[in-house]
Amino acid sequence: MTKDSVSKTSRRGLLQAGLAGVGAIAAAPAMAQQDYITAAMKTPGRPFSPYGMPATYESGVKRLVGPPGVNPGTGSSRTPLEMLEGIITPSGLHYERHHNGVPDIDPAAHRLLIHGLVKNPLEFSIDALMRYPRISAMHFMECGGNSGANSGPTPPPLTAGGIHGLLSCSEWTGVKLSLLLDEAGVQPEGKWMLAESGDAAGLSRSIPLAAAHEVGILALYQNGERIRPEQGYPVRLLMPGWEGNLNIKWLHRLKVVPGPMNTKDETSKYSLLQPDGKSRQFNFPLPVKSTITRPSGNMTMSGAGYYEVSGLAWSGHGAIAKVEVSLDGGKTWAAADMPGPVLPQCLTKFRINWDWDGKPATIMSRATDEKGNVQPPHAVWMAQYAPGQAYQNNGIQCWAIGADNTVKNAYA
Amino acid sequence: MTKDSVSKTSRRGLLQAGLAGVGAIAAAPAMAQQDYITAAMKTPGRPFSPYGMPATYESGVKRLVGPPGVNPGTGSSRTPLEMLEGIITPSGLHYERHHNGVPDIDPAAHRLLIHGLVKNPLEFSIDALMRYPRISAMHFMECGGNSGANSGPTPPPLTAGGIHGLLSCSEWTGVKLSLLLDEAGVQPEGKWMLAESGDAAGLSRSIPLAAAHEVGILALYQNGERIRPEQGYPVRLLMPGWEGNLNIKWLHRLKVVPGPMNTKDETSKYSLLQPDGKSRQFNFPLPVKSTITRPSGNMTMSGAGYYEVSGLAWSGHGAIAKVEVSLDGGKTWAAADMPGPVLPQCLTKFRINWDWDGKPATIMSRATDEKGNVQPPHAVWMAQYAPGQAYQNNGIQCWAIGADNTVKNAYA
Repeated sequence: MTKDSVSKTSRRGLLQAGLAGVGAIAAAPAMAQQDYITAAMKTPGRPFSPYGMPATYESGVKRLVGPPGVNPGTGSSRTPLEMLEGIITPSGLHYERHHNGVPDIDPAAHRLLIHGLVKNPLEFSIDALMRYPRISAMHFMECGGNSGANSGPTPPPLTAGGIHGLLSCSEWTGVKLSLLLDEAGVQPEGKWMLAESGDAAGLSRSIPLAAAHEVGILALYQNGERIRPEQGYPVRLLMPGWEGNLNIKWLHRLKVVPGPMNTKDETSKYSLLQPDGKSRQFNFPLPVKSTITRPSGNMTMSGAGYYEVSGLAWSGHGAIAKVEVSLDGGKTWAAADMPGPVLPQCLTKFRINWDWDGKPATIMSRATDEKGNVQPPHAVWMAQYAPGQAYQNNGIQCWAIGADNTVKNAYA
Repeated sequence: MTKDSVSKTSRRGLLQAGLAGVGAIAAAPAMAQQDYITAAMKTPGRPFSPYGMPATYESGVKRLVGPPGVNPGTGSSRTPLEMLEGIITPSGLHYERHHNGVPDIDPAAHRLLIHGLVKNPLEFSIDALMRYPRISAMHFMECGGNSGANSGPTPPPLTAGGIHGLLSCSEWTGVKLSLLLDEAGVQPEGKWMLAESGDAAGLSRSIPLAAAHEVGILALYQNGERIRPEQGYPVRLLMPGWEGNLNIKWLHRLKVVPGPMNTKDETSKYSLLQPDGKSRQFNFPLPVKSTITRPSGNMTMSGAGYYEVSGLAWSGHGAIAKVEVSLDGGKTWAAADMPGPVLPQCLTKFRINWDWDGKPATIMSRATDEKGNVQPPHAVWMAQYAPGQAYQNNGIQCWAIGADNTVKNAYA
């Protein structure tokens, strides 16, 4: 009665279900005389609760928080992607990237200012924003620095979350920014907007106004309830598919300006250093990307047999069109299933069956989006930039599986 | 600077955005000289956390838990639908319906037995279930007794959640039941299955085997993380769109049987009493239904002007095809927007604009599903059953709005 026990009927069962070629599954014959009345069936359970939490047995499923440094609120925590399923990230496990911690903002006192090159400078309380028509959509959020660990000379021995966990996905609800910009009345010379956060970092980014008007949302809700403090409570700018950093949290000011402002957050950071020493500034939509989350780094295989290989794909440019998986180090590729929903600028789940022969294997996934963008091999991605450039790394992710059942991050 | 302040530019702004006919919105002119450096911008925030929680300012957003009775774990708690947005219910706010509280089940010790009329009785540990291929899908869960408060002679003065809050929606991930049934090998005389819970209530229901084989899922994950204790940790039977009660939580046994077992949970309860004194037993898929959640019961209107009227629609028979809204007591109806995603057996969000003239009004929604089922008027639904029959009430829900800005539950 262990996970390693194998029944011959199991193999036949999966074959009947059309999963030809897969190996043994782990059911066990029932013990006909066993008493199936368990301890939990003899004890009344605990009563109702106003706000539920995960089972205590799942306390190991948590964000990957690094050790506190000189500034305890500066840095990031990561979503444990390999422990999760589906496309929605529970809000409690959404990644964090803060530059000066999580501010405590009373929504009754918070104001959003729209000013600069507008006819009518306006100020919105949260109650005021709550009266506008709303829009809901599922979108991923990803830090521009996500997967940067794979930009070094050797592959770091990390989990999927450790490498790619500055990535999460929520159903967001809010107000279309265009309604408020139109209400303020943008002047003809207003071509960009400065968005500034209401925390002690005063994070600020320049955003082309046409795009902000087209797709920007002021997010008030996340996964049904009010947006969490770590994601910008009481209001966050949402630019679906754009670098996480541009989705300004704790939003308190939008200033319409003639051109980019070259703030500290978009010159010293979030620009892409080229081999010739120049930097590419303003890299807005995130590139097409994917990763296998099961099996993945630092998991232990259970020996030869059947495995579902599954993972996540996403693109800042639209919906995912295709995910291919290679189970032989990149020699051959097969299209994975994408059972859906497949939504634009949203995580997409992919799944494919694998009958592992127990020999060393390197597995990887390659995503293509609806615009035809294809995830490049790791070495191709690296060659585009100067050494050490770690933003927007979308090189293909490999996992090397050993005959000793280990799974390790690898560059193929 | 209050939510009741009104600017003329606001009205023009919304007109520019194409929302002709709507009233005033609540932005205020900016105070040009105001200092926009807030207290939160002068104080470092709190550091990273392994598992996040809602803002303390949102502590009022919680499940509606009734006062404890003789058996503290027997009864229900409701999702505060009117406080939420989008289609995903945060797992902490998913409704609860327990018959003997929430059991504490160690997943390492839990077993699922499949026995009865099968060739190979099998027993599955959670680790074993984890090795099968998975399926993810977003589905609502609704108690068969939901909205039963509206089956009485007078409309109860409740909120949307108070009436309809035995309703929630999650992204579920698990194993197709068909894989396990095929592995056990159902004998020809096996036509139904008994599903039994592993709590102290031993809740058990009879389910036709063909349907269980076609759509049944053993749910292991909810909204990305492992399924919550209140929803059946470590494994729940999911029959998408069927009465919540049939989606057996803490699932520990499936017995294949020749016919229905007429258990205590499907004879004394969850059967529909007809006017002639006979009961309709085994009412599996939930009927098509909708409710307006904003504005809704016990909210206070802010006077005449623009409102977004929004709510939720769902059907156990498939996807929602149409939601119509009446803002004049049922005299005229208009199709609401359903921006999507529109998924089968899943909550669907609908939205429509309204310029309220401030006079008394009765508003309501009417859903139609892809099979052509239409939500009946309250009185038509009532006439189908004996007085007091309160299961599967899908009569049209009305909110009466007064000139004094009150919103009350009403029978139209």
